[in-house]
Amino acid sequence: MTSVAEAMELIKRGADEILLEEGLVKKLERGKPLRIKAGFDPTAPDLHLGHTVLINKLRQFQELGHEVMFLIGDFTAMIGDPTGKSATRPPLTRDEVLENAKTYEHQVFKILDAEKTDVFFNSSWMGGMSAADMIGLAAKHTVARMLERDDFNKRYKGGQSISVHEFLYPLVQGYDSVAMKADVELGGTDQKFNLLVGRQLQETYGQEPQVCLTMPILEGLDGVQKMSKSLNNYIGITDTPDDMFGKIMSISDDLMWRYFELLSFKSMKEINDLRQQVEQGLNPRDAKVQLAMELVGRFHTPQDAERANESFVARFRKGAMPDDMPELELTAGEGMPIANLLKEAGLVSSTSEAMRMIKQGAVKIDGERVEDKGLVMQAGTTHIYQVGKRRFARVTLA
Amino acid sequence: MTSVAEAMELIKRGADEILLEEGLVKKLERGKPLRIKAGFDPTAPDLHLGHTVLINKLRQFQELGHEVMFLIGDFTAMIGDPTGKSATRPPLTRDEVLENAKTYEHQVFKILDAEKTDVFFNSSWMGGMSAADMIGLAAKHTVARMLERDDFNKRYKGGQSISVHEFLYPLVQGYDSVAMKADVELGGTDQKFNLLVGRQLQETYGQEPQVCLTMPILEGLDGVQKMSKSLNNYIGITDTPDDMFGKIMSISDDLMWRYFELLSFKSMKEINDLRQQVEQGLNPRDAKVQLAMELVGRFHTPQDAERANESFVARFRKGAMPDDMPELELTAGEGMPIANLLKEAGLVSSTSEAMRMIKQGAVKIDGERVEDKGLVMQAGTTHIYQVGKRRFARVTLA
Repeated sequence: MTSVAEAMELIKRGADEILLEEGLVKKLERGKPLRIKAGFDPTAPDLHLGHTVLINKLRQFQELGHEVMFLIGDFTAMIGDPTGKSATRPPLTRDEVLENAKTYEHQVFKILDAEKTDVFFNSSWMGGMSAADMIGLAAKHTVARMLERDDFNKRYKGGQSISVHEFLYPLVQGYDSVAMKADVELGGTDQKFNLLVGRQLQETYGQEPQVCLTMPILEGLDGVQKMSKSLNNYIGITDTPDDMFGKIMSISDDLMWRYFELLSFKSMKEINDLRQQVEQGLNPRDAKVQLAMELVGRFHTPQDAERANESFVARFRKGAMPDDMPELELTAGEGMPIANLLKEAGLVSSTSEAMRMIKQGAVKIDGERVEDKGLVMQAGTTHIYQVGKRRFARVTLA
Repeated sequence: MTSVAEAMELIKRGADEILLEEGLVKKLERGKPLRIKAGFDPTAPDLHLGHTVLINKLRQFQELGHEVMFLIGDFTAMIGDPTGKSATRPPLTRDEVLENAKTYEHQVFKILDAEKTDVFFNSSWMGGMSAADMIGLAAKHTVARMLERDDFNKRYKGGQSISVHEFLYPLVQGYDSVAMKADVELGGTDQKFNLLVGRQLQETYGQEPQVCLTMPILEGLDGVQKMSKSLNNYIGITDTPDDMFGKIMSISDDLMWRYFELLSFKSMKEINDLRQQVEQGLNPRDAKVQLAMELVGRFHTPQDAERANESFVARFRKGAMPDDMPELELTAGEGMPIANLLKEAGLVSSTSEAMRMIKQGAVKIDGERVEDKGLVMQAGTTHIYQVGKRRFARVTLA
């Protein structure tokens, strides 16, 4: 049996903010399973590790014996973009939603226990809501408070248009908490406002207000910008074992500890022990291998992780990759040709030398030989570049 | 057959603004009956002459052969006050709405031709609208434009709260124009913003935008503040013939011409002729009698008007009321005792004289003897006060 103090310690791991902590303690002290809500957008079912930060937190609640409610926000997704401005956001059909939901579950249940997870669709209650009910819901919040939300505030002051319906979405999301009788809602730090709307609406509807727990946004491979597909600094959870392994091995040592805290299932005690070992002389690369093995093992199999490790070592020829290598950040602009990159990183003396080395098959990116002399590297990427046997650099393109 | 120019002249009579005039000309030139919309709140079925300004304009459209659509805004009335702040605005039931609508029709058809008037209830289309449709509708307008509405702007800047649902009501009202395919919408000047929302929504929904015609707010008996029940400066259309007659006779000569323009069915030519006669020596009181006779005749019968006239004359003893009398405005505060009022109006030299005169039965208000020495007159009223046979004053309490 876990004590409330122990539970709180686990829950607070990596969390950004808990509103209010004393409320959570009170709920935990009752000793009954809590209803833990987290909402997901069904339009983007391709998850990367950034998304799993939240899901890992759900898993911890599950381990503590609480009831995890995985909410698919299909109601608004089926409305699409009602302003008609974005041709790229067509409304989803019910079939598409169900298909996306399955993809979601398939990915998420690599972290969560499917048996202990309830999947909800907010169309179940929002679909039957009338315009009159929507007006009643809108009456529960003021324009001034909506305009306090960071992004609304900036857009309003900056003269950028906000459609009236955008004020309704936080209310819909908040009402989901009422419909689901959530005790705790999890979200990214960017969701804090919306989580608080849920808290407030529950009080209006006579429920005990939910505790809002925000998780930080995970940095991408560059260690600076948030992990995102469009910045191409992400590790997709459907990446191949080799890709995933190689990408994790490419991150800086600092970022590694951040990833350990937010992504590993090791306890903080184990992680701190490992950190101490590194301080006492363990090669940080060995710690990184442990992280890579754990994550590849989670999203593929332990055997896949083993094989990825072997193949990684083979690619870099055992012992050939230095423990320490120069780390650089370069500005890519619209993309940087490989030859220029090698020159700016100091790995070659001229672009013509770069061309020659590529032709000879002596240039590798993350251990993979470069064949294309015209290759252009994109901003937001981090890779280990290698020329010949001894010249290495970890380069981030900004 | 009326020409477009003649029609425009009639339509413009007393109107505050027409947006856009050229749009109206274009619509009229097609020679087909136009769909004329005006919305009414079913919570206040007790009409006064202020309300009839708009209805008279509808009547003119009817005379020109257009189709009048009398909209009862029952949808929002049945929602009530969803903020729960006002205990005095409970939602109306369907039965109450229907009952109020009947009262409305009974009153309104003293002005409009019932045969040529279609009565609509916006619950017919709004009642079936889903929350998703409401969100779609809300997407058609921006927060910034809503905050441009005068009252919203003032409240936002003044730190007074605006509930989010208040942004939805103008959209509902505007959508009514879409559902009704209105060619023209009439409203008070305070409705201009909402009428324009209707215009904009029709364009969004692919309809020709409605022309917005605003009518001024009618001044009450004091000639200064708007006619309203709460200011007690109104003439109710269910007032008794004697009350109605007496109240009209109490207004100033200036206000009389305003009432002629906005309330009389006489043509502007007839009114201008009458005005000329007054300028050439006709007693303005005789013109006022014509107005009083017309209005009492409209809301009661011509015979009632005849009797009210006779009784008015008898009360003031034929010839006893001077053609000209002092007009005064006094500040009533929480109400002014009759004795003080008579003193301040210069009709008596002291409150004790006032008391004595009342006791002797020598004080009259609008020709009616005052029995109660403790009578307190309220702000917002205008009456003719008489002491003895010769002392008169028309006093407005502000």
